[in-house]
Amino acid sequence: MTQDHRAGDSRLERGRRALAEIDGHAGEAVVASLADIAPDFATYLLEFPFGDIYNRPGLDLRAREIATIAALTAMGNATPQLKVHIAAGLNVGLSREEIVEILMQMAVYAGFPAALNGLFAAKAVFAEREAAG
Amino acid sequence: MTQDHRAGDSRLERGRRALAEIDGHAGEAVVASLADIAPDFATYLLEFPFGDIYNRPGLDLRAREIATIAALTAMGNATPQLKVHIAAGLNVGLSREEIVEILMQMAVYAGFPAALNGLFAAKAVFAEREAAG
Amino acid sequence: MTQDHRAGDSRLERGRRALAEIDGHAGEAVVASLADIAPDFATYLLEFPFGDIYNRPGLDLRAREIATIAALTAMGNATPQLKVHIAAGLNVGLSREEIVEILMQMAVYAGFPAALNGLFAAKAVFAEREAAG
Amino acid sequence: MTQDHRAGDSRLERGRRALAEIDGHAGEAVVASLADIAPDFATYLLEFPFGDIYNRPGLDLRAREIATIAALTAMGNATPQLKVHIAAGLNVGLSREEIVEILMQMAVYAGFPAALNGLFAAKAVFAEREAAG
Amino acid sequence: MTQDHRAGDSRLERGRRALAEIDGHAGEAVVASLADIAPDFATYLLEFPFGDIYNRPGLDLRAREIATIAALTAMGNATPQLKVHIAAGLNVGLSREEIVEILMQMAVYAGFPAALNGLFAAKAVFAEREAAG
Amino acid sequence: MTQDHRAGDSRLERGRRALAEIDGHAGEAVVASLADIAPDFATYLLEFPFGDIYNRPGLDLRAREIATIAALTAMGNATPQLKVHIAAGLNVGLSREEIVEILMQMAVYAGFPAALNGLFAAKAVFAEREAAG
Repeated sequence: MTQDHRAGDSRLERGRRALAEIDGHAGEAVVASLADIAPDFATYLLEFPFGDIYNRPGLDLRAREIATIAALTAMGNATPQLKVHIAAGLNVGLSREEIVEILMQMAVYAGFPAALNGLFAAKAVFAEREAAG
Repeated sequence: MTQDHRAGDSRLERGRRALAEIDGHAGEAVVASLADIAPDFATYLLEFPFGDIYNRPGLDLRAREIATIAALTAMGNATPQLKVHIAAGLNVGLSREEIVEILMQMAVYAGFPAALNGLFAAKAVFAEREAAG
Repeated sequence: MTQDHRAGDSRLERGRRALAEIDGHAGEAVVASLADIAPDFATYLLEFPFGDIYNRPGLDLRAREIATIAALTAMGNATPQLKVHIAAGLNVGLSREEIVEILMQMAVYAGFPAALNGLFAAKAVFAEREAAG
Repeated sequence: MTQDHRAGDSRLERGRRALAEIDGHAGEAVVASLADIAPDFATYLLEFPFGDIYNRPGLDLRAREIATIAALTAMGNATPQLKVHIAAGLNVGLSREEIVEILMQMAVYAGFPAALNGLFAAKAVFAEREAAG
Repeated sequence: MTQDHRAGDSRLERGRRALAEIDGHAGEAVVASLADIAPDFATYLLEFPFGDIYNRPGLDLRAREIATIAALTAMGNATPQLKVHIAAGLNVGLSREEIVEILMQMAVYAGFPAALNGLFAAKAVFAEREAAG
Repeated sequence: MTQDHRAGDSRLERGRRALAEIDGHAGEAVVASLADIAPDFATYLLEFPFGDIYNRPGLDLRAREIATIAALTAMGNATPQLKVHIAAGLNVGLSREEIVEILMQMAVYAGFPAALNGLFAAKAVFAEREAAG
């Protein structure tokens, strides 16, 4: 993982690189899907979460994805984004076992249904990875 | 950190040790506060979250506290438990800076008010630590 | 418990009687506190929840309070109203033990923090009852 | 309904019996679906919610299902589990009319959309029951 | 927009007119879908939200739909109702651009996933309008 | 209200002006309270919500505050921020009556407790305004 803070580098460029590193094609697909409804929102998404937050030193991407997977599982109302971040967790080095541990732990804080729905989302993401070879 | 799975060891005993290691006095205070209203719930709290989940191998306590702090901040409706786990994060080796990074990141997933209220909870916990010397 | 559906009876009158039966003085206090900010909302509160819903046959008040206590505990963001309905549960015949069982069960569906905060609300309500003799 | 607390009986066995009694095939299907992603979570699900909580005396299964249906409807982010528990409610003796009353009441505490989505879930469960004869 | 408070006019009639004006066919479809499961709930839906609230002077329908679209997007657990109210916003005079602004703003208060899911709901509603000519 | 998009103007400067216009002293107090715990978060708060979003053309500040008040009331877990935005609503031209209408309407979408707690927050803000003369 490289976190780049060169002065001449815009937030948008930094965000684009971070999104590609973290979310891969799934991130690009989200940005593309905004083109005809809210292109400025794609810019904000690249700039603030990815250009500003994920580029900050002080917490590595592995820890950041643990936090995001936990939060989205606990909230329970953003399944598409949870799937993107389960895949992102694998991209930045979390093992399947570690992701499953995070999801199971959410039963304690957000209830068994939230944990179950998180586990079923992970099952779908893991299966897609295997299908994609 | 020691994770102990000796056969002769009950879930309750394992939970008591994990709670002491993770939450310290704050955990004991929660258990004590349940004595006159729901003593069985104190047992469940020791057994399932602490005896079962936090004792599992596969994810270290540092990662588990990142997940819990993120989830409670995002849910935004459990401030007392968030404070206990911000303190627990410090206990298991997270730095103040890392905890602040997790809380700021929640602005992306649960909004700025959730992140702000998380930061104010951390500010209170950090101040208590300093007052306690 | 009396559920009264006389034709000449307005929703507002039925609601006022149901509120008095279920919530007692706590219900009157809520209505009074709305007088200077949103008096029409006090009318809606009497008419729809209490005049319409709580007066319906098909589910007794005991079952209705079980549902309300469970929902407010699981949502976790309406402590004042949860306290009113824990007291209401006692008013319509739930025992303290039964209320504690409902609150503990919410750990399964909404997480341990939601259940803990519900139990602490119950502890406060039970203590007030005893202080009031 | 039988609640069995024989000393020689493990939490897992008690949980399995309670799950079968309450959720029937839907419960078994959830347990089976966890086999390849998180088999330990199936064990926890049987042990804590079903082995510990639903087996407790102090609140009958009818009241427990009222609480669960209300909570899941109010939270609004766990439709699959809500459907399982609407079916469970029928299994433990709630009538369709009573379930509809609980769902309608949630409009008061969680808003009309939550109640509407709960009613549509019930409509689907009732239709499945009729199709199954 | 006409808001009618004639004395002889029932809440149900007022609600039916307001629903037709605001939600058009989508509103009628919701009412129809309740006929076989909870016909009384259709009556409450017409009477309280539409007969009472949306008929109140003091806030125009445009402002009311801004509030509803914002709330449903932020809650993130009621997509069908959000779609109905995005269409309703267009019916009462909000432009597509204004609706998109409201949805983007929700990223600040409820997080980027809530805003994204709101934008995708709007994209679907706008496409249906165009398909319908 | 002035919305200024001069090229030489930084997001931070635009955000500072928007915050001052919308939230007045309450906004400055939030920024100040972050100085010793997360000064970068104060910068993000000025830049993204206020520099980017509230400065966008396409929706006036009055409409933006309607959306924010509605969302925070419906979510029900961010009372301090709701109070800031009720005051902000008054600052940008909403009348007390209009704010009360928005809050009452939330009973439909998020339940009566959310609306009640919003009304009590408004009561506190209105009283502070009067006390401040």
